[in-house]
Amino acid sequence: MGEVNIKKLASELNLSAATVSRALRDSHEISAETKARVMEMAKKLAYEPNPFASSLRQQKSKTIAVIVPEVANNFFALAIKAIEEVARAKDHHVLIYQTHESGEIESSFMTSLLSGRVDGVLISPACHVANKKYFQKVSEKIPMVFFDRDHDDIEGVKITTDDYESAYNATLHLVEAGCKKIGYLAALETLTTGKKRLQGYLDALKDNNLESMPALIEGNCENNESCRSKVKDFIAERKPDGIVSSIEELALPCYYACKELNLNIPKDLKLITYSNLAHAELLNPPLSTINQPAFEIGNEAATILFKMFSKRWYDPNITISLKSSIIKRESSRS
Amino acid sequence: MGEVNIKKLASELNLSAATVSRALRDSHEISAETKARVMEMAKKLAYEPNPFASSLRQQKSKTIAVIVPEVANNFFALAIKAIEEVARAKDHHVLIYQTHESGEIESSFMTSLLSGRVDGVLISPACHVANKKYFQKVSEKIPMVFFDRDHDDIEGVKITTDDYESAYNATLHLVEAGCKKIGYLAALETLTTGKKRLQGYLDALKDNNLESMPALIEGNCENNESCRSKVKDFIAERKPDGIVSSIEELALPCYYACKELNLNIPKDLKLITYSNLAHAELLNPPLSTINQPAFEIGNEAATILFKMFSKRWYDPNITISLKSSIIKRESSRS
Repeated sequence: MGEVNIKKLASELNLSAATVSRALRDSHEISAETKARVMEMAKKLAYEPNPFASSLRQQKSKTIAVIVPEVANNFFALAIKAIEEVARAKDHHVLIYQTHESGEIESSFMTSLLSGRVDGVLISPACHVANKKYFQKVSEKIPMVFFDRDHDDIEGVKITTDDYESAYNATLHLVEAGCKKIGYLAALETLTTGKKRLQGYLDALKDNNLESMPALIEGNCENNESCRSKVKDFIAERKPDGIVSSIEELALPCYYACKELNLNIPKDLKLITYSNLAHAELLNPPLSTINQPAFEIGNEAATILFKMFSKRWYDPNITISLKSSIIKRESSRS
Repeated sequence: MGEVNIKKLASELNLSAATVSRALRDSHEISAETKARVMEMAKKLAYEPNPFASSLRQQKSKTIAVIVPEVANNFFALAIKAIEEVARAKDHHVLIYQTHESGEIESSFMTSLLSGRVDGVLISPACHVANKKYFQKVSEKIPMVFFDRDHDDIEGVKITTDDYESAYNATLHLVEAGCKKIGYLAALETLTTGKKRLQGYLDALKDNNLESMPALIEGNCENNESCRSKVKDFIAERKPDGIVSSIEELALPCYYACKELNLNIPKDLKLITYSNLAHAELLNPPLSTINQPAFEIGNEAATILFKMFSKRWYDPNITISLKSSIIKRESSRS
């Protein structure tokens, strides 16, 4: 059996290639009966359309891009799963891109999307961005939705969580557990997400007449060694009795640091972190977490993107905020 | 500034569009000097080639696909990272696809790749596959490399690990730790990977005159609830004093089961599992693991794929096996 293309289908069906092509595109010019015949033959001969040629004609790739900092992260894994479910129901493929927090990689991906490779973009931006022009450039051409993370100087549709409130409440939880010197492990400081979390922490301490000591752990947390030693230095020097960590990647190093410094969690140091870690309960001790509604964020973002495709979404600048929940476990027990 | 296309570049440079197009494709017909001028102007005006049009011309997408069961898995996350590094050095994009162990989703992805969307495929196949014809179909058209997992009835280039030896050695480790009734949590039973691990376990027990009790935990381990209750039933009914788990997703439920059954790890039950879990050390108790060289597998697979692209790889049927290492921690202490 040779290549099955439109010509081959046409000759098998005794129709013109133009008719077959129109039938495959579900054109109103073709009768339902003919369409059914064409589809049946296409199925029988396992006809595969050429995506490049058909994309050029229709300007549709039936593909969406998801750009995230890391896939090996419980939050993003759950969000992606939700996005895939929505896309599958709409017969679209999902391409996943990892930026590893690099603005350079992000810019290169985004720029490559500019010319029709995908129909839409769901993005949770990288921390380290020098020049944000590409966000503007892409969003002018392709429907785009920010999820979880965003930049406050860029307009767009944004699905986030209650970062301020959840950080405030997590800090309050440590205050109520008896902490007097609560540290904060900052990250994502270039993003609205990070700024709001930090502000929630600061305000909770202010409202309780406690001093703050935020520590910005810079650099790439994928590099466990350097990250661990910075966290250890912070604990050794500042001697906090409680820590709110703004990301999971900074909370787990606290376990190693406390072991090395002979500190007991929660007796000497109480800990709570943003995390969707599936097995927080199995850690020693079980880790208190601020759980973001990861699946719901992915679902909402993808649903809105498909509404944008079908022109059923009219608000180009809106921020929708979903609620996180605080799960108290042994690591923050009073 | 209007659309920057080849025509625009040509008019800015006072060259013909054909010359600019050839220069951009690095044609030997164009002088180095002209190429340099064209590239400089393309950079200055931020010219973006249309990937569909240029793919049609060159039949190259400069993109490779990575198909894996799950991205939220430490093994695959590491392997993907290595693949991305190789691809980035070769100026290729990496598209990541998740099958969630479904043969149907896998088949749909693979079939969509048939017509030029990507230049090559790196795949770690799903467990549940009904009809394997699509592997054959894709590999006839596009360079493809299996990594970690494979099917023994499909030929191809395969980068795996020493599944038989590592399972044998892990079982022997439990025997030496004093276990007499060693259970095995099987998965991936449809794949060569799973078959070899099971055989390694069986042979280690036979060589030590011990009885075996493998348990196949069927169904989707993404569904934690059903997975946990099956693992718990196995432990409650068969009362093993040691368990070798063939995947991480079956080992963590042992922790919950032991808690519920009031069993102590490692006193009542010793545990070792295939896993690249980054924080196995932080679990209570720290988990003994069979660590696969995840990064090396990804690196090797991607490197071979690019050799296939440039026709510097001549062996269409070869299996390269890399060594895993056993990391003994508290969960299997005698």
